[in-house]
Amino acid sequence: MTTIATITVSVDGFVTGPDDRPGQGLGVGGERLHNWVFGGPWTYDGEHRFDAMSGEDKAYYADLTGRIGAGIAGRGMYEAAGAWGGTNPFPGTLVVLTHRTDDAHDESFTFAGDLGDALRLAREAAGDKAVGIAGGADVIRQALAAGEVDELYLSTAPVVLGAGKPLFDGRLDLDLEPLAVHQSRWATHVRYAVLH
Amino acid sequence: MTTIATITVSVDGFVTGPDDRPGQGLGVGGERLHNWVFGGPWTYDGEHRFDAMSGEDKAYYADLTGRIGAGIAGRGMYEAAGAWGGTNPFPGTLVVLTHRTDDAHDESFTFAGDLGDALRLAREAAGDKAVGIAGGADVIRQALAAGEVDELYLSTAPVVLGAGKPLFDGRLDLDLEPLAVHQSRWATHVRYAVLH
Repeated sequence: MTTIATITVSVDGFVTGPDDRPGQGLGVGGERLHNWVFGGPWTYDGEHRFDAMSGEDKAYYADLTGRIGAGIAGRGMYEAAGAWGGTNPFPGTLVVLTHRTDDAHDESFTFAGDLGDALRLAREAAGDKAVGIAGGADVIRQALAAGEVDELYLSTAPVVLGAGKPLFDGRLDLDLEPLAVHQSRWATHVRYAVLH
Repeated sequence: MTTIATITVSVDGFVTGPDDRPGQGLGVGGERLHNWVFGGPWTYDGEHRFDAMSGEDKAYYADLTGRIGAGIAGRGMYEAAGAWGGTNPFPGTLVVLTHRTDDAHDESFTFAGDLGDALRLAREAAGDKAVGIAGGADVIRQALAAGEVDELYLSTAPVVLGAGKPLFDGRLDLDLEPLAVHQSRWATHVRYAVLH
């Protein structure tokens, strides 16, 4: 069973700009991180459609999503995204990692109280496909530190944000192996194996 | 006149591991940053030859060095590298940026007391080629902040270091445009335009 962590960072390593919150999921200026998802600049208020993704971005995303049977996301990401309007946007079951499982009434998602439970539920749901850990950064760090991540799909947006939530926090020392790269105007997507 | 900044970072954005100093130029564990330069793992004591560079690393480096007519490096980098044994390893004139120009007696190098002078001297020496800013991180940040960098050649080594000197320090907000990518076992090299 392969476990894949996937996230988009700025060139200076932030997964959001400053002040990320519901309605501004990627923080001030952070929407530039996801230009590759929407085929170019977008706003929270304007129309933005996943089917605008094109070229190398689309090829990368198709490779990733084609491999994933179930996913895990942190509560912070789930809330910042407004629970994606109540509809799971990812392929297969999405397990939301939260310490407040009593609050979880949304039937579109599965909830787990710790990473071990989340991985167990997602691996059961993934069938013969991979589990994808979609963030936030804290969940990915926790899974990397636990040795539970086999591959890292890291998209780097061509922006230096200067502030925000960093992907790494200075406590991990890892050797990786690059397996593939896709580059577009809006991102350089690198697929890494995590060496154990 | 094009000015190119070029440096190698870890996936978590460090240009050295901790405790970089003369004899251990890239800090503890930081030699992994430059595996791509030497065709694989190397040590400070062992033999390491630039002609071991191969494949995509060599193609990237040839593109870069073929464009550069003169370079700039910071004093810290110059000292950490032991003045490269007294021989300038870069193509063309290398201007060392230092506030201690009175100490500078090494005839292999040119010395300048501030970034403006260093750029002027390097641009005069570069002829119709580009000026390359080879680091350290502080010199690159200073040149980016001054709007003096047209392109960033950023090599990312497949390692998370956890500590060291960061390339960015949270004070720059920049939009970049990816222009090219080369990937090997030991690095993903991205050429960016800096948008002004």
